[in-house]
Order: sequence, then C-alpha cells, then structure tokens
Amino acid sequence: MTTRRLSELLREPTTRRTFITRTSALAVAIPMIDAVLDACAPGSKGDQAAAREPASQKAPPTPQNPDSRLDTSLHVPSRGAPIMAPTNIALQRYDPALPPVAPGRTKQVHMTIREVPIRITADTVVAGWTFDGTIPGPIVHVRQGDTVEFTLTNDGSIPHSMDFHASRLDPKTAFRSVLPGQSISYTFQPRYAGAFLYHCGTAPVLMHIGSGMFGAIIVDPPTPLPAAREFVLVQNEFYLATPANGIAAFDYTRMLATQPDFVAFNGGPGQYQADPIRVRRGARVRFYVLSAGPTHPCAFHIVGEQFDTVYLGAPPENAIHGVQTFNVAAGGGMIFEFVADIPGEFPFVNHAFGHGQKGAIGMLLVEA
Amino acid sequence: MTTRRLSELLREPTTRRTFITRTSALAVAIPMIDAVLDACAPGSKGDQAAAREPASQKAPPTPQNPDSRLDTSLHVPSRGAPIMAPTNIALQRYDPALPPVAPGRTKQVHMTIREVPIRITADTVVAGWTFDGTIPGPIVHVRQGDTVEFTLTNDGSIPHSMDFHASRLDPKTAFRSVLPGQSISYTFQPRYAGAFLYHCGTAPVLMHIGSGMFGAIIVDPPTPLPAAREFVLVQNEFYLATPANGIAAFDYTRMLATQPDFVAFNGGPGQYQADPIRVRRGARVRFYVLSAGPTHPCAFHIVGEQFDTVYLGAPPENAIHGVQTFNVAAGGGMIFEFVADIPGEFPFVNHAFGHGQKGAIGMLLVEA
Amino acid sequence: MTTRRLSELLREPTTRRTFITRTSALAVAIPMIDAVLDACAPGSKGDQAAAREPASQKAPPTPQNPDSRLDTSLHVPSRGAPIMAPTNIALQRYDPALPPVAPGRTKQVHMTIREVPIRITADTVVAGWTFDGTIPGPIVHVRQGDTVEFTLTNDGSIPHSMDFHASRLDPKTAFRSVLPGQSISYTFQPRYAGAFLYHCGTAPVLMHIGSGMFGAIIVDPPTPLPAAREFVLVQNEFYLATPANGIAAFDYTRMLATQPDFVAFNGGPGQYQADPIRVRRGARVRFYVLSAGPTHPCAFHIVGEQFDTVYLGAPPENAIHGVQTFNVAAGGGMIFEFVADIPGEFPFVNHAFGHGQKGAIGMLLVEA
Repeated sequence: MTTRRLSELLREPTTRRTFITRTSALAVAIPMIDAVLDACAPGSKGDQAAAREPASQKAPPTPQNPDSRLDTSLHVPSRGAPIMAPTNIALQRYDPALPPVAPGRTKQVHMTIREVPIRITADTVVAGWTFDGTIPGPIVHVRQGDTVEFTLTNDGSIPHSMDFHASRLDPKTAFRSVLPGQSISYTFQPRYAGAFLYHCGTAPVLMHIGSGMFGAIIVDPPTPLPAAREFVLVQNEFYLATPANGIAAFDYTRMLATQPDFVAFNGGPGQYQADPIRVRRGARVRFYVLSAGPTHPCAFHIVGEQFDTVYLGAPPENAIHGVQTFNVAAGGGMIFEFVADIPGEFPFVNHAFGHGQKGAIGMLLVEA
Repeated sequence: MTTRRLSELLREPTTRRTFITRTSALAVAIPMIDAVLDACAPGSKGDQAAAREPASQKAPPTPQNPDSRLDTSLHVPSRGAPIMAPTNIALQRYDPALPPVAPGRTKQVHMTIREVPIRITADTVVAGWTFDGTIPGPIVHVRQGDTVEFTLTNDGSIPHSMDFHASRLDPKTAFRSVLPGQSISYTFQPRYAGAFLYHCGTAPVLMHIGSGMFGAIIVDPPTPLPAAREFVLVQNEFYLATPANGIAAFDYTRMLATQPDFVAFNGGPGQYQADPIRVRRGARVRFYVLSAGPTHPCAFHIVGEQFDTVYLGAPPENAIHGVQTFNVAAGGGMIFEFVADIPGEFPFVNHAFGHGQKGAIGMLLVEA
Repeated sequence: MTTRRLSELLREPTTRRTFITRTSALAVAIPMIDAVLDACAPGSKGDQAAAREPASQKAPPTPQNPDSRLDTSLHVPSRGAPIMAPTNIALQRYDPALPPVAPGRTKQVHMTIREVPIRITADTVVAGWTFDGTIPGPIVHVRQGDTVEFTLTNDGSIPHSMDFHASRLDPKTAFRSVLPGQSISYTFQPRYAGAFLYHCGTAPVLMHIGSGMFGAIIVDPPTPLPAAREFVLVQNEFYLATPANGIAAFDYTRMLATQPDFVAFNGGPGQYQADPIRVRRGARVRFYVLSAGPTHPCAFHIVGEQFDTVYLGAPPENAIHGVQTFNVAAGGGMIFEFVADIPGEFPFVNHAFGHGQKGAIGMLLVEA
C-alpha cells in the first residue's frame, strides 16, 4: 500500500509518545473542575456566571441541551503530532446484524487468517491479526445440531489456530496451530444454543486474542427464539504500542498490565455512535453480547431501557428477567433482549465506564 | 466557608504528593514481613520472640485477640503533611436504611444538583458533584407501576442530567443535559422491581459518576417481599487529585486508569465500621447492593453469614440460594438477604480485597 | 535450611529488579510483531519467508504444529540474574482431587498456621503464610449438616485467624485473631452445600489472603450429586517483592495496585500443565472452582469442552446449563461440570487472559 514496506516504516524511530492519555484527559477534566470549584465558593454564582467558560457563557441559556448526542461522547486519546496513517485504509463499520442461518444442516465455513492494517478510529490504524480481514472475524450463525465443516487457511506469517467455544473437540488436534501457508479442517456439531466466542488459541493466547483474532458464533436452539431484530456485539480491548508512520502494533506488555487504550464493540471504538443500529418501534431486539477480552468483562446496559430477558446459559432456559446491567465474563457470551416499544435514541454501553468510556458506547435508534 | 474562594485555594501550588499510598502500605507490610521472615528461620522462634515488635511483645500473651475490630481495619492512604481541610465540613454518616414507600401511587421526586465539598473520611474532603448535596444522592423508594414525577434542578455550574435505570424512556429527551440554573421534569412508571442505579448521564459519564453523581432507586414488587430490615448499599470508587488546601478534586485521568484511592459503601470509606448498621436478632435482613462504579464490580459478602437468597433479576423471581459471595456489575444492582438468627458483629465487604481494603468494609451488628 | 537466617538473607541489599516483566514480554512480542509487519507489506511473503525467524524457518513446513502443548504456554516473568533460592525447597504439585468425606457426622479438622518458604515455580520461592504448610491449605470435605469441630493453632509469628465461608458464626469470637503459639477452636454446621472459601480474616485481610492464607471447603448436599471425578481449583494472585537470595516476600502495595505477577490454580502457576489432571473417557468431571483473589474473578473455561451444568448457588438447585465461560467472584465459589466423553487434552483456563496468561492455565487429560 506504500512503496516502502510497512515493517520498515514501523521500525522507524519516533519521538512522539503514543497515547498522551493524561494530556487529553486533563483537557476534559480541568474546565469542569474549575467550574465546580467556582460553584463551591459561596455566593459566587451570580458574578462568576459571566466569567465562566464551559457551558453557561458559550451555550445560550436554553432550557435544555439541544444535542443529547454530546452526552455520550467517547474518551479518545489525543496524540502529540498528526497521524500519517496510510490514507487508503478506510474506517469501516462492522455490520452487527446477525446474518440468517444458511439452509441445510451442514454448514461449510472457511476462514482465512490475514495480517492486515485496520483503521479502528479516524486516527488509529492497528497492525491487525484477523480472521478474514476484519476485527472481529465474520459472524457465524448455525443451529444446534448442525454439522459445521470448518476450514482455516493461514495466510499470515506465524502459526495461528482456531478455537470455537461452540464446539466440543480435542483441542490438541482440532485447535492445533497451523503454519503459514497451510490449512486445517475439522467438523463439529454444536450441542448447546447460545452466543459463543471463537478465537485463535495459539500461545500466548493473550497476544493472539489481543491482536484481533476473535469473533462470534451464534447457535440457535431447535425451537427458534421469538422473532426479533438480532445483533451481535463482541467487546474487545486494544493495547497499542507507539505507532510508527501511523500504524500501531499491539503491545503484549500492556496487555499484561490490563489498562487498555480502547475498548470497543465489534472492533470500532464508538462506531455505532457515528452510524447507529436502527430498529423499528415495537420490534423485539436481541443482542448477543460477548466479551473477547482479552481481560475485561462487559457490564452490558442500554441507557433508557431494561432487559425483559437475559439468558445466562443456553436459551430458551437459563434466563433471568427485569435486568438493567449484567456482566459478561471475558471469554463468555450472554443474550440480552427487550421489546423496543419506546421510540428514541438509546446508547448501549459497557457500564464499567473506566473501560466503557474508551469506546464501548454505541447508539440504538428506535424509529417510530 | 472561608473568606478565600475555594477555586483559588485549589489552584494554589502545592508540593505535597497526595496519596503516598506506597509509604503507608509499606508501613503496614514491613513489620509483618520481618515477622514472617524471622519465623522462616528454623529454630528462631524461641530467642526471636523477645525481640519481635508487632504483636507478641506489645500484646500480652492472652489466648485471643481481645479486639476483633482490628481484624477489619481499612487501608487508609497516609499523607505527607497535615490536612488543612475546612474544619466546618463535618463527616456525615449516610443513613443506609431503606425509607418507607410514601403513600399514593404518584410519587413526586425533586432533586437539586449541588457542587459541594464533602468530607468522606476524617482527613479527606472532595469537591463533590452531588444530587441533593450527598454522595450518593437520596434513596428513592417506590412500587412497581407507581408513577414517578421527577424534577431535576441544576444548581451546579456545568450541564448535568439524570438517568434512572428503573425507567424506560427516550434518553435523548428525558435524560438530556440541563444547563446551570435550569430544571427538567419527566415521568416514568417502573416496570420491574429491583435495585436500580440512578446517575448523571452527561458526557463524559465516567467523570460525572466518578465525581459523586449517583444513587439508588428501589422498586418493590406488587406483592411485597417478606418483611425485613432493609438497607441500601451503593459501592463507588474515588479517584482523587492532589488536594489543595485540603480539598481534593476528582481526577479523570486516574478514573481511566481504574486504580482507585478509596472504595466505599454509600460514599464513606469505612463509615459503617465507625458507626455500624444494627438489627435485632431474628430479623430478616435485606441488602439492596449496587455498584455505581464507575468501573469495578462489588463481590458482596458478609463475614460469618450466608445469603439464603440473592436476586439476580427482578424479585420475587430470579433468585439463587445458598450463596457466600456474588459479583454485582458496575451499573448493576442485586438483592442479598438472610435471617440474622446469630447475634454478633458481621463485617460486610467487597471480597475483592484489593478494592475492598480501600474502604468497602462495614459492620452489621446483630443484637440479641 | 541455610546457615544464615532467612530474615538476614532477605534484608541483604540487591540491585536486581525482581520482575522484569516488560523485558520478558517484549521478548515474546517482538518477533511476532516483526512477523506480522513483514506480512503486512504486500508481496513480502515470498522473499521474506527465508529471512524470518520465529516459526517458518526453524519449524519444518509440516502441515500442523506437532506439539499443541506450545499453544498453552504461560507467561513467565524472566529475571535479570540467576535465582539463588534454597535448593532444598522442592516444587510440589498440589493434589486437586477432592478427598472423600470421612465417615461419621462429626468431623474434626485441625490446621496449623506455618510461615514457610514455598516454591511456586521452577525459579520462584515465596515467603508463604500458610494453613498446614501449603498454598492453598488442605481441602476440607464435609456434608451439609455435619458438625465440624475446628481447631486452629498459630505456629506463625503474628496473629492470624480462620474464616470459613461455609459457616455461620459470630466472627467477633469464632474468627478472632489468635496470637502466636496459641490455639482457637470452634464448631459449625454447614447449612448450604457448595464450594466455599476459607481464609485468614486478620487485618489487613488483603495481606493475609494475598500471602497464601486460603483454601476450599466443599460441602456435599444431603442427596449426593451424580457420581463424578471431582477436583478443586482455587485461583489466587501473587504480588511479589524483589527477592533477596531467592525468596520473595509478598508486597502489600502491589496487592493494592491489583496487577499481579502470577495467577495460579492451587498455588502453582502452570503446575497442571507440567503434570495434568487425568480422567477416564466417559467420566462426569466436576470442578469446584473458587477465587481466593485477593482481587480478581476467575472466568473459568475449558478449551474444547462446554459445561452442561454450572451451579451458581447451592447444588443441586441454582444451576444453569450450556455454558462456555462464567465468572467466579473473588471470595466466591461455583461448581462446573460436564461429561468427558471426548478423549484429548483440554486446557482449563481463566479466560481473562491478561490474568490467565500469568499462570491460571492447566491441562485436563481425558484418556480413552
């Protein structure tokens, strides 16, 4: 994509500090703190109001904030210098819609491992390890008892593998690592319905999941669940090294320290704020929520709504009802659903906001 | 509260490092480590005992530790210099008792946002953002299907808002931000019973929840749960900047790093050790436990007791039984109960002690 | 064990930095990153393959990775200098098998607190605080309603105590601290079946649990669960100070920062990879999984298998079915089971891999 090899570009010395998180965060916090401190001073409200910066002066004194979208803005680490990421790598929205189950009881699934740069935000391109070129990999949708004939081709440069949580197989053979240029095939029949992770299981697993090698396989029960608009959300964390010429490699040391730079649904921090998920009023909405981690759970919540059903295990059993927020473990998957009978704009979030604020916030539009 | 404005005080240069966590922690750990190392040396027990400091010399050789309260002491970060917090800000216990439901099916709830300094420990005053002047805000108690007519008045200096997890409403309008000096009203009918968080939803939500803007709304089912002594515990984390003249602003950068200074039940680290929760022997005791976060779950546990019932979702269904410890997700709420048929002093804790030790330890006295 | 006292050895000045985590991690990550970057360059695959280091050159181009064990390798912090730990402290596997319940309805359990150095990996020896000389302490196995007559003798050098989560007792008396050289006795009857933690409850609890003072008590229901091969796995974290002469004390400050050096099942990072748990094909396998913490949950998962049953509360009720991964809270315990009808090598892991990679990975061999 450039005349110079990416590996050369990445090795180029750079003095920029990658994630100047502190700087950007302070920029957010300080005006607020000034404001609150002003307010703390007794009697200051009158004469201070005129001199105050953040809201009361610049915003007209309307009774409401006209743009509620501001209320769900993300924390985006700023950078000290302009990013020179290859301009031909576009930011692509990951379609969260659950694709229909293909006909027939035997499903052929073929994935190819590709190590490719991926733009995850407007100014962040990562050196992704992927299934089929996206983070997450493609959504697989089958029925309980189907036969899945799976083939993995490794077009990457190091060994990789595939571990389907929906399968029951000897990992030593089925999930073994495949050398570059090679393929592997295996077959399985999902025993349980539910939302299951798949991921590269090659050691160190932390590095492989942490670099983008994960996705979702959704297994329908024999009797289908009630008709619904169905979406898949896979949460993951990004731990990035200093980018060189605009491309950030993944940083294993930072993965071990468990303080991510970004947390995302379906690989794109904030992507569903820019381009929301849309449903019609009255539809049952079903979210298959997984945490790929590599480390943190997802405290899944929809602002302004409540789940009538959360399936902790295989549907249609294993449900709890009347839930606002529930944790999906790293490596786990649960199903969250409700009837969208109220029109509006509903942010869905990881309510553990020290993580969620880093990108695990999206928008569900319920259109009248 | 002083002749100088708080904002000036806070901006004053200071060379003290706020939380000398390491120093204080080492002070705790080192004598113990010496002791254990002495003990590791074979044959050292006899002649070393006399020279040992921490316990065996100073404490008389009674068969038991006479003060079991020592066994639940908190980790309190020490500071390098005396705190000069305004002396007229008192440490106030947050009453955890669930207030009774007001009569009638329509409940008027009015909260006012106030940005006020709050003393959270003997030597820590924070620049709080609050609902009605306390952290957490007031406990709201209603019945499923009641009509809640809510009004929020913003007496703060920046936009704020209110998100009730017990409601189902379009956030774009109901939870919109309110400018300083303005009010907003909306009405909702809780569909589900349970323990639900409320919080400011203005962006960045992490900053607003993290600065004290949260509380609990408890919704009773149509058929009341068995009679019980009922208490509300909202866990939260404090991430503080270096205090200036004794008042610590909240630190957004540290919120993003997810390593809190304090973790508390109802805003006061250790407050229920100083002044326990008291019940009579034989009473059913019901804790509505929420984690406001902003980030960490609460692994709720009562030392010396077991829960006969934990409601994961809306009561009276969605219960599990015979539980020692269960995680409440950040943003979530669960109900924990048991019959206090054993008299004694029962610490209730966040059993994730790397967090719990920072203040999420209280005491339940069961009086004969 | 040496002619010099251990306490002297530990106090000896040392310039080595203990856990050069960053160094070792980079050593793992960098060759991979090089590889992926090479792969990112279009057209580089052909001529670069020969010059590439990690896998494609050294490994013959066989269609499969012949050693799947590589796929579950642990992250082991490397050290800058050779370890001089006392060579007479052997690495000992903790037997995870649930021992049978002793006959009779009254069980006498006697534990002695010993502060002893324990080798937890080939090159790591810690200054353990233990129940009966091992981390975790011994597995206690009783039936619901049995009478447990417990005695604790403190052969340590500071006060310690015992808190059984399976008991219901006034902690002020039963769980009180015992001075060195003293004993304490109490009696309890477990009300609920399940997997329960026990631990030292002396303040600061974080330090005592964090230093090795924990274990499991398993309580059978009146009607036994289906016959199974039963194992106990207690996850814990290790936070270590710089070792002196090969022995690492526990570091309370690092416990408060919640970023562990090691995470282990039954006290030995990776011990069940070196020496797997073995069952016969067709057996029902039941894991009693606890997290001692002190802080992190365990996202328990078995690679290549699925749980037919996870008991969230007391068995035989409180079960969910068809589960891939579920979080056990710090301080909590759950029961995970399945029928091992597929022969093979199944890693069991904490799927929160930022933690799991540090040692919470073991191997279950299902032998045909």
